[in-house]
Amino acid sequence: MLPFGLTEYKARLEKTKESMSDQGIDVLLITNPANMNYLSGYDGWSFYVDQMLIVISDEDQPIWIGRKMDAKAAEATTWLYKDNIIPYPEDHIQNDLKHPMDFIAKILTQIGQSKRKIGVEMGSYYFSALAYEKLKSNLPNAQFSDATLLVNYVRLIKSEKEIEYMKRAARIAGIGMQAAVESIQEGVRECDVAANIYSGLISGTPEYGGDYPSIVPLLPAGKNTSTPHLTWTDRKYTNNEMVLIELAGCHQRYHSPLARTVSIGKPADKALETSKILVEGLNTALDKVKPGITCEEVELAWNTVISKHGISKDSRIGYSIGLNYPPDWGEHTASLRKGDHTVLQPNMAFHLIPALWFEDYGIEITESFRVTETGCEVLTDFERGLIVKDHLQAII
Amino acid sequence: MLPFGLTEYKARLEKTKESMSDQGIDVLLITNPANMNYLSGYDGWSFYVDQMLIVISDEDQPIWIGRKMDAKAAEATTWLYKDNIIPYPEDHIQNDLKHPMDFIAKILTQIGQSKRKIGVEMGSYYFSALAYEKLKSNLPNAQFSDATLLVNYVRLIKSEKEIEYMKRAARIAGIGMQAAVESIQEGVRECDVAANIYSGLISGTPEYGGDYPSIVPLLPAGKNTSTPHLTWTDRKYTNNEMVLIELAGCHQRYHSPLARTVSIGKPADKALETSKILVEGLNTALDKVKPGITCEEVELAWNTVISKHGISKDSRIGYSIGLNYPPDWGEHTASLRKGDHTVLQPNMAFHLIPALWFEDYGIEITESFRVTETGCEVLTDFERGLIVKDHLQAII
Repeated sequence: MLPFGLTEYKARLEKTKESMSDQGIDVLLITNPANMNYLSGYDGWSFYVDQMLIVISDEDQPIWIGRKMDAKAAEATTWLYKDNIIPYPEDHIQNDLKHPMDFIAKILTQIGQSKRKIGVEMGSYYFSALAYEKLKSNLPNAQFSDATLLVNYVRLIKSEKEIEYMKRAARIAGIGMQAAVESIQEGVRECDVAANIYSGLISGTPEYGGDYPSIVPLLPAGKNTSTPHLTWTDRKYTNNEMVLIELAGCHQRYHSPLARTVSIGKPADKALETSKILVEGLNTALDKVKPGITCEEVELAWNTVISKHGISKDSRIGYSIGLNYPPDWGEHTASLRKGDHTVLQPNMAFHLIPALWFEDYGIEITESFRVTETGCEVLTDFERGLIVKDHLQAII
Repeated sequence: MLPFGLTEYKARLEKTKESMSDQGIDVLLITNPANMNYLSGYDGWSFYVDQMLIVISDEDQPIWIGRKMDAKAAEATTWLYKDNIIPYPEDHIQNDLKHPMDFIAKILTQIGQSKRKIGVEMGSYYFSALAYEKLKSNLPNAQFSDATLLVNYVRLIKSEKEIEYMKRAARIAGIGMQAAVESIQEGVRECDVAANIYSGLISGTPEYGGDYPSIVPLLPAGKNTSTPHLTWTDRKYTNNEMVLIELAGCHQRYHSPLARTVSIGKPADKALETSKILVEGLNTALDKVKPGITCEEVELAWNTVISKHGISKDSRIGYSIGLNYPPDWGEHTASLRKGDHTVLQPNMAFHLIPALWFEDYGIEITESFRVTETGCEVLTDFERGLIVKDHLQAII
């Protein structure tokens, strides 16, 4: 059932231990579900309760600790020995008197790790302020440090197999986008378009299926295209409105996001003009990408184009992508923005999202790409431009 | 666009302030997206970055603080004055040098709230250990206390309008379950069943659409029915295996979960027997529900039935449900389990999930219900039993 060979998991673990050593960490407590999956294979929707993968510098295998009813999911999806899968009792779930971190601290103490240098993912969604307080009070002799992005940075450069999964995800993204573009029209409900998108994203292709993306389809319409993160309602689309569609294909938890903008009826001149500028900037940024270039140089290439047209944008134009779980498909490491000096290397992968949101409308046209030996390869494959649904469909 | 009238939001806010007063809290910093929505109406997939709703005991309106590009989503979905919607700059996103909590602390200081008694949701998914550290270091004169479930407890008893949304969600859950039961069969891929479920859950009914549930459809099959939180793959179902289906209908972010178990081909005798015991226990627990009974008494009614058959279960058999966002549709307040002395009151709502997971298989047959004046009303409506897909479909 494992999506990668044992060699690949062990290489990931070795790289993680090297980073731990560089950062003076003996014991790494991993709560980010993507990082847990990356190192162990663990895959289940159980991150809504406390769970953890523990990497100890001088131990061969990580230890999985989670809720009792999820232990069999760990047996089914990881490469870990059964002895390294430790369940905590069910009465620790949402109980004021017993916190899973009390149990975990006890285990760490039992196995002689309570006085060591312990790295925790302070900024992880699933490591609450309460979890940290519980750990600290139970392990008074440990020395804690923040290792939020330690494993995320190991994930930055993808293997060939990871890229293969992202290419599949990109093909699935195209299927979802096609379903959206075909079904958006006057009189159709937003929820029915969302249902069609989901159907495409989850069925995937006849050769490989789709997994759930870490973010649901985002579908702001009309005036709400001025903001990116609204979902859908059961309202019907009207003529002469625009719709943003941001989605991702997902396969084996690897993502390739893609966004397009649809105009129902003839678009306003300014929207049309803006979309052309956006595509010009997008293409210029893609042309800039190659190993040795920094993230901020890619943004600068984009920025030079839009500045020429009198447009400014203060948000980043891209971020590293790959393996992930809700609520985000971004890796939280490299961003394509001013001040990010990350040097591009082959098989880094990004969602390039030079979207523009104005006072009363917005345009999103995005691509997912990987860095190659000499430039970049766009993973997603969909007509790049504003899509007009005006009786006859057209891409402008 | 608001799903509730202003009077209802204001009543919720008043109850929240009463709880704050009881707990000696002047300023409540709300980061749980369900709690933000409950009090303000805010609805967007933006909880993957720091955001907050601030309730101040002596101020009429809450303050929303979030990312700049999401401010228009707050204008579009909340009842707050524009002045109470405060964006933080885009360069605070995933930036080691600038944390959104630095910005929020500055605002709290500017408006004279930096030396007060501040409640924070320590156990919320989206209030990281790092966020708490940043707040504490920026507000050294504030007095912090844990208010994780303060608003969750205000949510415990639903209004008539909330129950109406949950009934719609329950009808949608039935549509999703019907899609699952119809499409599961030998040779069909798990992902294609998941796609059909999604299509049903998101389209909803002709009268009202579906929203995204806070948990994706859970579909463990075969030996993996011994654990509940696995999703799906692109493997094909084989004959003589069982499938657990746990899903929820969602409408206006209100959930009604529902689970059933399907046997492809004739079920094993023990599975059939267990499912009958489970339904007997489920019915007995439902019969027990009425105002004045405690949560643990409902569990005891179930437990008496299964003990008689020599079965034991250490996990809870239900939890409060309603409004929610990923990663969980449970409210984290009342649980149907030993030791929970919460007294049932009309319009509390629960997912009753007396599922049984054994060494090599499991059975899930669940219902969502609300407490009425005299007993309980089951919201979901689907044949209650093990579903056999054996050429002719049958419910046993």
